[in-house]
Amino acid sequence: MSASVSASRVGVWLIGARGSVATTVVAGCAAVTAGLHPPTGLVTETPAFADSRLPALEGLVFGGHDTLDCPLPKRAEALAAGGVLPHGLPAAVGAELTAADHEIRPGGPLPGDTRTDDELIAVFAADIRDFARRRGLDRAVVVNVASTEPAATGTALPASSLYAAAALRAGCPYVNFTPSTGLHHPALASLAASSGLPHAGRDGKTGQTLLRSALGPMFAQRALAVRAWSGTNLLGGGDGASLADPAAAAAKNAGKERVLADTLGTVPEGEVHIDDVPVLGDWKTAWDHVAFDGFLGARMILQTTWQGCDSALAAPLVLDLVRLVARAHERGLSGPLAELGFFFKDPVGEGSSALGEQYAALTAFAGRLRDGRTR
Amino acid sequence: MSASVSASRVGVWLIGARGSVATTVVAGCAAVTAGLHPPTGLVTETPAFADSRLPALEGLVFGGHDTLDCPLPKRAEALAAGGVLPHGLPAAVGAELTAADHEIRPGGPLPGDTRTDDELIAVFAADIRDFARRRGLDRAVVVNVASTEPAATGTALPASSLYAAAALRAGCPYVNFTPSTGLHHPALASLAASSGLPHAGRDGKTGQTLLRSALGPMFAQRALAVRAWSGTNLLGGGDGASLADPAAAAAKNAGKERVLADTLGTVPEGEVHIDDVPVLGDWKTAWDHVAFDGFLGARMILQTTWQGCDSALAAPLVLDLVRLVARAHERGLSGPLAELGFFFKDPVGEGSSALGEQYAALTAFAGRLRDGRTR
Amino acid sequence: MSASVSASRVGVWLIGARGSVATTVVAGCAAVTAGLHPPTGLVTETPAFADSRLPALEGLVFGGHDTLDCPLPKRAEALAAGGVLPHGLPAAVGAELTAADHEIRPGGPLPGDTRTDDELIAVFAADIRDFARRRGLDRAVVVNVASTEPAATGTALPASSLYAAAALRAGCPYVNFTPSTGLHHPALASLAASSGLPHAGRDGKTGQTLLRSALGPMFAQRALAVRAWSGTNLLGGGDGASLADPAAAAAKNAGKERVLADTLGTVPEGEVHIDDVPVLGDWKTAWDHVAFDGFLGARMILQTTWQGCDSALAAPLVLDLVRLVARAHERGLSGPLAELGFFFKDPVGEGSSALGEQYAALTAFAGRLRDGRTR
Amino acid sequence: MSASVSASRVGVWLIGARGSVATTVVAGCAAVTAGLHPPTGLVTETPAFADSRLPALEGLVFGGHDTLDCPLPKRAEALAAGGVLPHGLPAAVGAELTAADHEIRPGGPLPGDTRTDDELIAVFAADIRDFARRRGLDRAVVVNVASTEPAATGTALPASSLYAAAALRAGCPYVNFTPSTGLHHPALASLAASSGLPHAGRDGKTGQTLLRSALGPMFAQRALAVRAWSGTNLLGGGDGASLADPAAAAAKNAGKERVLADTLGTVPEGEVHIDDVPVLGDWKTAWDHVAFDGFLGARMILQTTWQGCDSALAAPLVLDLVRLVARAHERGLSGPLAELGFFFKDPVGEGSSALGEQYAALTAFAGRLRDGRTR
Repeated sequence: MSASVSASRVGVWLIGARGSVATTVVAGCAAVTAGLHPPTGLVTETPAFADSRLPALEGLVFGGHDTLDCPLPKRAEALAAGGVLPHGLPAAVGAELTAADHEIRPGGPLPGDTRTDDELIAVFAADIRDFARRRGLDRAVVVNVASTEPAATGTALPASSLYAAAALRAGCPYVNFTPSTGLHHPALASLAASSGLPHAGRDGKTGQTLLRSALGPMFAQRALAVRAWSGTNLLGGGDGASLADPAAAAAKNAGKERVLADTLGTVPEGEVHIDDVPVLGDWKTAWDHVAFDGFLGARMILQTTWQGCDSALAAPLVLDLVRLVARAHERGLSGPLAELGFFFKDPVGEGSSALGEQYAALTAFAGRLRDGRTR
Repeated sequence: MSASVSASRVGVWLIGARGSVATTVVAGCAAVTAGLHPPTGLVTETPAFADSRLPALEGLVFGGHDTLDCPLPKRAEALAAGGVLPHGLPAAVGAELTAADHEIRPGGPLPGDTRTDDELIAVFAADIRDFARRRGLDRAVVVNVASTEPAATGTALPASSLYAAAALRAGCPYVNFTPSTGLHHPALASLAASSGLPHAGRDGKTGQTLLRSALGPMFAQRALAVRAWSGTNLLGGGDGASLADPAAAAAKNAGKERVLADTLGTVPEGEVHIDDVPVLGDWKTAWDHVAFDGFLGARMILQTTWQGCDSALAAPLVLDLVRLVARAHERGLSGPLAELGFFFKDPVGEGSSALGEQYAALTAFAGRLRDGRTR
Repeated sequence: MSASVSASRVGVWLIGARGSVATTVVAGCAAVTAGLHPPTGLVTETPAFADSRLPALEGLVFGGHDTLDCPLPKRAEALAAGGVLPHGLPAAVGAELTAADHEIRPGGPLPGDTRTDDELIAVFAADIRDFARRRGLDRAVVVNVASTEPAATGTALPASSLYAAAALRAGCPYVNFTPSTGLHHPALASLAASSGLPHAGRDGKTGQTLLRSALGPMFAQRALAVRAWSGTNLLGGGDGASLADPAAAAAKNAGKERVLADTLGTVPEGEVHIDDVPVLGDWKTAWDHVAFDGFLGARMILQTTWQGCDSALAAPLVLDLVRLVARAHERGLSGPLAELGFFFKDPVGEGSSALGEQYAALTAFAGRLRDGRTR
Repeated sequence: MSASVSASRVGVWLIGARGSVATTVVAGCAAVTAGLHPPTGLVTETPAFADSRLPALEGLVFGGHDTLDCPLPKRAEALAAGGVLPHGLPAAVGAELTAADHEIRPGGPLPGDTRTDDELIAVFAADIRDFARRRGLDRAVVVNVASTEPAATGTALPASSLYAAAALRAGCPYVNFTPSTGLHHPALASLAASSGLPHAGRDGKTGQTLLRSALGPMFAQRALAVRAWSGTNLLGGGDGASLADPAAAAAKNAGKERVLADTLGTVPEGEVHIDDVPVLGDWKTAWDHVAFDGFLGARMILQTTWQGCDSALAAPLVLDLVRLVARAHERGLSGPLAELGFFFKDPVGEGSSALGEQYAALTAFAGRLRDGRTR
């Protein structure tokens, strides 16, 4: 471990702890720590973060909530069969998967559950506090990586907000890696503000929107007039099925549109489709078609096709966020961490939607983390 | 004309003045000035440059050298037939095309020309000086938009360098919008240094490389490992034919590779092809295939297809460069203008190859141009 | 005119006579007849049809119904401005456009029209008969090229069926180039059967489905297992707007799915989207993504991107169909012409959905048309 | 085994027996025979061939020549690591791989080998005869699946022709699955003609050319004018390296061009590139760009991107060819089998290059194989 990495023990409490992303987070952290794979995709392992005193990957301890009960080692084998994890990896990191599996507690509410919101929050918060105490953690970060919920309607707290409230009650920083409501619920606003805890979100930027946030600024900087930006996403896995629900897709697409509106300064024509194609499993294909005008109205077209593995794109960012948010907590920062907009489709706080500017803000933040007291 | 735009009369002396780019520059400047088209594609018409006291488009006066003798109005009609210029535009700006046509002088050397390099330089410089004097210009900027030359071999001055030397001799700033040698010849180095003139180049970044400079940083910032970046360009027109010459293509590809090497920090596998496909005319299609690794070695692919009109992409940038370089000259700046790297595949001076950082450098430069004395 | 072409005068009665396709049909027939353009896209001008005694293009006379009243010459100018027709063509064939314009009668019913179905059919049939009589035609073919209607619900006759009934009543062969109901209405079944008239349809195969009918058989013949076939269509123009209506799109998509089911022998996963992107005008982009398995389950992908001009693809097929159906009528053929399945997404009668087999059936039909008495 | 499948024991003698294709042939035949995988990609397992009395897959016995000495089980593990074979398959069919490995004899000539052509042919023929005798085979088919040779220059026999001559001398039918010379050498012409043996070739049609032979006819049948057809292939593996040699690529590209010339009736503009991209391994990406004109000269574009695993595409076709050629031999057929053009880029004998017509010829051939005496 390099001198500038903090030796603090940090808990990673994953909402949706048995899902593809969570399983890849746990297996991947173990694989990189063991030297089985280079830290490809881990932004916080690049030189810009070398002196930020982030918690070491070796010191991360995993647990979480889930409503499913498939054991993590079995889930990892399924991911390896689908090409998401390398063959042989589940066996190689079996001990770490099993250890995390022991720290997963029942999520909720499932249909028929009669507990009140407050009872659920209390149970979830107790689970998290118990985890931190038993494992002797300096702090724990709660990260939502569960399937996308339908956009919230009415005033009832959706499950993602119950977990977010539990994080606050347990004194933990919170990261919403999904487009679900989480801390964005009006009923949680004052609680979040008074908690003194940092939080980040929402909706990890892993594919089509990542590209859009890199390409949108190019058109704007070159004064090219984007007329229509259309997109289709094909994906299987749980995400494909849940986003085939128009209500869930609506939440996701709001973030996608924000990137174009912000970087182009206008909302072009064009729709975004999310199709559930089970045979593709965790592999996502995103096709974008951009019709733009150049000088004297010349009609031009850019098309992009992105073929990525969603879990492999998301997992290292989850680890990055945990390290950054844990260190921010250690430094006493609180409230929405707008400087982490680089990681999100629909970032909290004020900030640019252009990837380059987001990266500049992130590396400046890395510098701020460097200084100051540490325990 | 807005209060912050300079009323100075600036000459635009185009090497290759009868080519597609030059014709689009002249016709387009007239069309935008007349309000026939919005200034799409003109970076210097965006708010970031509003206070930089750039010369107004209305004050630009066009002339140049060419070895061909097709009249500009006729050339413009051919471009309109090919869809590069809007139908009706050549007629609407016929007067301006004719005016520029009268200021085009014979280029050279053609085969059989027995004049020495120095005699040619003297003739070219006299043409430029005569243009500036007769038209009462405050200054003139020489811009190379001629077809790409084969990479220089030996010590003889290629034609692009003769023109560049003539620009210096005539006291004019110089912009090399092509990958040809121009001022980059060792024989011109001390002359350029002692001239006190600003210059910029080289090789306008209009398509595939523009995209690469936007996308390369995305991979680097996300710590994704690019394994292979392959590309094929299909284009007709003069550029397609000249770049089908492997020697000319070599000059162009060096610039393309530099962008990847600089932004990725490594040179990935992969080749770049430039195919002459006459039926495509001025329309260029560039296909890129990027094979990259994510977390735990997951293999992913990004493909892009860019369908652009090269002249329509290049022409506004030429106008941008003339305005910026003219204003830099007015401000007394000299030597390589590294801050204009945003416009080039292979920029002079030191600077980032990442588009976002280049744009930040450009807008900072726009701020510097704002202040200070003007003649 | 070659010896084997029939000199008969044939009327072309277009439902939707002021639309893009109809305008392109009239202008294009005139342009090819005048030798201004080669007969690109006209299947019936290829050698396989040289001896089929088809009516000459020179002998076609145009008219039709429409509810709009934009004059054809003006409509043609708009198409030229959008790049669908060559610049200059509307002027060059102005006389023919005006002549056809004079033969366009008001369509219906518009909102508020109180005429009964039978009254409307009677008016439409009278219009057609009047056209044939006044212009001294040997026969007239009625072709539906109007915007796609929502899928019929209930028993009321949709407009397309009123026109189809009028064609029968006027003794004219009928071609349905759209997915609208037309003759497919149960209320018209016995009438169609007893009419002794040939008919063809439905839904011209001009882009994505054309490709699918060429590629589907490739997968089947090679025993490759298609797992998912997904598609997105982007188009503006009237078609984009009408197909953005889910009910209208449903009719169209039924035809698309039939091609896959028939050629693959199974219905793969995957959806088809039709997006209205007004800025694209008559230009359609269709992206297809085919996930298929090879030997030992190897996962492979084919993607296609088709950028076509819908009217330019449809118009020559309309002329082909008129000639073939007119000749079939002359030969005394009646009922559904399954041999014309080559032209349609959802062909009438029995026949293959594989393009190669459809072409073989078409050329065999061309042979049958060759023989026998002609008036 | 179904009643209509022949129980004859047929040898498969593979030139390049330790390569990717050969290894996939051996492993795949065992996997399908054992019921581990369905016969995806095996044309001869479709109903059209059910009554053709083809030799059963269970009766195929494998051997061959190679200059390398990597054992087949090890080679299979490497293919599984690269995703070409399913994980676990090499172990599951280890016995069959080892059995084939024992039947591989040293190929040649390697540098320094002083044997004459005739001596080499004699050794190779003896190896094949010995194999057939020891294993009690009814017949053996020799198949060239070795890396592509440079196009033959001069009169010396290239290695592929030495093996082809050996096949004739051993009395075996011969299949050339590569673009190498094989039996196409003038020195072998009379020998081949007098041998009484059937042969087939050359250059298996597995990707870009397969697509072209399906799409070329579509353009021709629709009378669309293809102006330019450009292509780029990216592939690693041995094939990528050998085809990066321009001489080897020239042989391959000749076959590709033939398909366009034959199906379009004209040779469009456009080049074909084959790039060695080692990181892609056995996975090949082929991008095609087709610029075509429609009615009235409308400019349209089709692009295709094919991402396939070359060995998985080739291997089942090798098995198909062995079965068909063995049965043809049994039926007493001799000379070039033009009816197998469906499988090849550059087929022997006369025949269509259109995939649909080739398939019709193939299924007609399947019918002919059905009848007649069998030994």
